[in-house]
Amino acid sequence: MKQSLLFVPTLRDEPKEAEIISHKYMLRAGYIKQVAAGIYAYLPLALRSLKKIEKIIREELDAIGASELLMPALQPAELWLESGRWNQYGDTLMRLKDRHERDFALGPTHEEVITFLVKDVLNSYKKLPVSLYQIQTKFRDELRPRFGLMRGREFIMNDAYSFNENASSLDETYEKFHQAYINIFTRCSLDFRAVQADSGNIGGSESCEFMVLSDIGEDTIVYSDSSEFASNIEVHNLPVGAPSPDGKGTILHAKGIEVGHIFKLGTKYTNSMKAQFTNEEGNREDILMGCYGIGVSRVLMSIIEQNNDDKGIIWPKSVAPFDIHIIIIDPKNNNQTAVATQLEKTLEKRYEVLIDDRFERPGVKFSDSDLIGLPVRVTVGKNIDNGFIEVKFRDKDEKFEVKIADLVDFINENY
Amino acid sequence: MKQSLLFVPTLRDEPKEAEIISHKYMLRAGYIKQVAAGIYAYLPLALRSLKKIEKIIREELDAIGASELLMPALQPAELWLESGRWNQYGDTLMRLKDRHERDFALGPTHEEVITFLVKDVLNSYKKLPVSLYQIQTKFRDELRPRFGLMRGREFIMNDAYSFNENASSLDETYEKFHQAYINIFTRCSLDFRAVQADSGNIGGSESCEFMVLSDIGEDTIVYSDSSEFASNIEVHNLPVGAPSPDGKGTILHAKGIEVGHIFKLGTKYTNSMKAQFTNEEGNREDILMGCYGIGVSRVLMSIIEQNNDDKGIIWPKSVAPFDIHIIIIDPKNNNQTAVATQLEKTLEKRYEVLIDDRFERPGVKFSDSDLIGLPVRVTVGKNIDNGFIEVKFRDKDEKFEVKIADLVDFINENY
Repeated sequence: MKQSLLFVPTLRDEPKEAEIISHKYMLRAGYIKQVAAGIYAYLPLALRSLKKIEKIIREELDAIGASELLMPALQPAELWLESGRWNQYGDTLMRLKDRHERDFALGPTHEEVITFLVKDVLNSYKKLPVSLYQIQTKFRDELRPRFGLMRGREFIMNDAYSFNENASSLDETYEKFHQAYINIFTRCSLDFRAVQADSGNIGGSESCEFMVLSDIGEDTIVYSDSSEFASNIEVHNLPVGAPSPDGKGTILHAKGIEVGHIFKLGTKYTNSMKAQFTNEEGNREDILMGCYGIGVSRVLMSIIEQNNDDKGIIWPKSVAPFDIHIIIIDPKNNNQTAVATQLEKTLEKRYEVLIDDRFERPGVKFSDSDLIGLPVRVTVGKNIDNGFIEVKFRDKDEKFEVKIADLVDFINENY
Repeated sequence: MKQSLLFVPTLRDEPKEAEIISHKYMLRAGYIKQVAAGIYAYLPLALRSLKKIEKIIREELDAIGASELLMPALQPAELWLESGRWNQYGDTLMRLKDRHERDFALGPTHEEVITFLVKDVLNSYKKLPVSLYQIQTKFRDELRPRFGLMRGREFIMNDAYSFNENASSLDETYEKFHQAYINIFTRCSLDFRAVQADSGNIGGSESCEFMVLSDIGEDTIVYSDSSEFASNIEVHNLPVGAPSPDGKGTILHAKGIEVGHIFKLGTKYTNSMKAQFTNEEGNREDILMGCYGIGVSRVLMSIIEQNNDDKGIIWPKSVAPFDIHIIIIDPKNNNQTAVATQLEKTLEKRYEVLIDDRFERPGVKFSDSDLIGLPVRVTVGKNIDNGFIEVKFRDKDEKFEVKIADLVDFINENY
């Protein structure tokens, strides 16, 4: 893909409004642009990474038997009145009236809509369990939007909902999502902790947050380092370094960015909205529900927050917008352009390739390339006359002079 | 994929609110469910077809060098005041105020936002032309939403915008989109006509509509049957059967559903929003713009409108939610389930397979299968004891008894 066609408006100057590194780099490297406070456009590079994250999510959720659907953003107030949340939700719920003066909300979450959809359909134990998910734009009118995509007013969420006939079935589904979330965040190369929020109550209040470790996190998490899952309960009065209550480790302390949350909802919505099923004994019961959410655009930003240096982003392979950045030092030199175009063609059989064909100075191209942060950089310059090109990996300092004929093998072996 | 996990709420009864066949079948076959007037949830089967249509669109637009981005649904009123449309658009524009009483629109289209994004970036002839597109949820507060996804209030659009330095560059881009649209609708198996709306004016008013031929269409199109493109101008006073003015064919008359529209916008937005570039002579000029749109959810419904019989949908291969529907006659019979599961595994190497594992009567399964309309049906019943299964193609009446061992070859050859 030619960079000249891609729309990557890199900035020379540090954007003043950005307080955190990921936000700075996403603006400077031309990944996003603000349209209004807390409202952003995802430019082509960002969208490519976003789609890779979404693909990982779909693969992991499909693997546990969840099915994807797509619910509307516009939600009629009636559903929120049924659940009781229309009057509880406050100013973060974006509300509007249609031309007939009917009230609507712009969905920040979809418990009401999904319950409405499955109600009277999942009406027998024979049809349960079912897990449904979507990846969708959500809306929250944050009082103080900040940190770019971290706390925006329009953002992309993956929300999932499970419907189960009893507590043990819900437990099973919940565990599957728990493991799927671990897989998803691991595949996104995030350094994260699963933090159990409450494990005591029977019948619906167990929940677990997935926290990306970061100094800019707004949540404080306390956890013991050797237990399987971190915990933010009971131990929060203990000093750092003390033994954890369960005696299995040491209390650590960190700040975290919440990127995921899984929750046993129980019958909160199915009861108020009358979503019942007939059990094996022929009696009617409220369906048990679980809900599961990933902040997709927040994951994107968290990855950058954890993967960068003073020159720009350092993309992990799994979510990089492209694998390889080919830099043509002098696009007016026909020989360089021909070699670069041929390399692009060859490499594209196996990798995603961005080719910087712009008429810019080499210095600009190199600094833009570091900023954009693709894993592999291939520079096509004067040395092609001797049959060589330069290869550099974004996460290492070393540069390699590689014979043109050996390039594909070299990348296959080292990338 | 197991049908029991997929959430396909088929209905026995004819839905009363549906006036057209595609709407009826989408409701009855469990593809969509209405959440409010003109607002629908896409259930898993519909979403799968929708994604295939989207993939076709992406492939064809990427092929002409357009780049994908994603703009926000929430648009600040300031941008619409700049273009002048805030006060012109009327009641179909959904409007809301945020918690700070600032005005926003829910985007029905994105000319203002895209012009805002490229302004000051595409500031030189060296950076032009650029074409950008998105596939996104749009909002229009229709006075009378009807026909399901045909005229909804929340719908999925593919909108694209081109930025060009002069009329000949815009012409070139416009022609590329024209051809891409022909490819897209052809790949979607639609019977359509490209209808030139106006071809006279220089500098920005040429446009072309892509019309799916259908009796339920709300637009009337008149065209000559042998000219390359149909036309709805100049000829609309002539009777059906008369020679067309260009003398190249005969005047036909049909009703059409508009599924796409390409348009040379010229400087309408770039002028009012001051998006200029420096031309080769060093002078500042307004960028020339083109805009291009496909009603993605409307395409989905149009395909069904053109591909059905009295039993249900007949999916064309390219956009079917799955290729093959395996019906287990008796899921309690371990042998049948084992054979069906093995076949699913084998077929999934090459095809997308839905397996009806529900505990329902065979009659229900067959009628649901016809309703859902996957191209190939494989029935696993008693005859497996003799080593046979039944294969039927949705668009033909004939049934084939095929040896289990020969099934894959049989499908490869006949599908």
